[in-house]
Amino acid sequence: MASPRTGNAPPGVDPEAFTWFQAVDADHSGYISVKELKQALLNSNWSTFNDETCLLMISESGHVYGFSALLRFIQQWKNLFQQYDRDQSGSISFNELQQAFSQMGYNLSPQFSQLLMARYAQRSSNPSIQLDRFIQVCMQLQSMTDAFREKDTGLVGNVRLSYEDFLTMVVTRMM
Amino acid sequence: MASPRTGNAPPGVDPEAFTWFQAVDADHSGYISVKELKQALLNSNWSTFNDETCLLMISESGHVYGFSALLRFIQQWKNLFQQYDRDQSGSISFNELQQAFSQMGYNLSPQFSQLLMARYAQRSSNPSIQLDRFIQVCMQLQSMTDAFREKDTGLVGNVRLSYEDFLTMVVTRMM
Repeated sequence: MASPRTGNAPPGVDPEAFTWFQAVDADHSGYISVKELKQALLNSNWSTFNDETCLLMISESGHVYGFSALLRFIQQWKNLFQQYDRDQSGSISFNELQQAFSQMGYNLSPQFSQLLMARYAQRSSNPSIQLDRFIQVCMQLQSMTDAFREKDTGLVGNVRLSYEDFLTMVVTRMM
Repeated sequence: MASPRTGNAPPGVDPEAFTWFQAVDADHSGYISVKELKQALLNSNWSTFNDETCLLMISESGHVYGFSALLRFIQQWKNLFQQYDRDQSGSISFNELQQAFSQMGYNLSPQFSQLLMARYAQRSSNPSIQLDRFIQVCMQLQSMTDAFREKDTGLVGNVRLSYEDFLTMVVTRMM
């Protein structure tokens, strides 16, 4: 495995992506930290990514030797975000969020989307969700849905949970 | 309200605490950021606090004008940690964690404590939990327990949840 300090991309890795990775890995540790990732990623309104999303992305995509995975991961989210940002405003409105959920196969009420908007949208006359929050919401929604489905073996749409079942689901999936 | 830039503690605020706050607020923004808090707090093994715990603490205790609350908050957690660290090793072992939960009034199985240890303990011959992870675990446990109790109105120890009930509990309490 080539060292990231050599300046040459490992075989099979896009040299441009490798240059980006080396620039982001500011301390040349060979790992991208939450702080480094945060400084490398911007929303369309020029705000830096929030800490929670960077933490989720790092823990999902692993360390330096999976860095092409990290790049693919970011690119896939950007593509998805642009696809659901139908008016190309650079952020996701309530209606766009509802449509995105529906196309991703989630059956969620407008009230639930409203709760997410209240929590994650930028406060303005037209509340909307930036790329970082969109990634966070979708990753956590997927994780919670997986946890629920594991319990809802009969696919009836509701489950009976003991206190420790509930705690274990959250600890395993969300903490 | 006195400005933090004046160098004089506001009335009723311990001057030493105020000096600490000003040192932590490195960019003199009047707010303590996650990054600033992270640089100010150490575990007994000299490691800095993890990002998740700093985020939880900041969102719990609010911004600069509640800074005496932030100080009290940190001090209370330190006291509690020292009380449960019975052998004064500077960290919490599996047995100490079980005892702590029991004294806090939680009825949790050894398996659940083991899950927390596997997730949060430092890996060594004697796995143990540092102050930052202890604060994180206790804050999130409290939050999840509150969420569960809201649904378990009959105090029977288990609840039936729809998919959206479950998502809403997690979004409202954990995200």
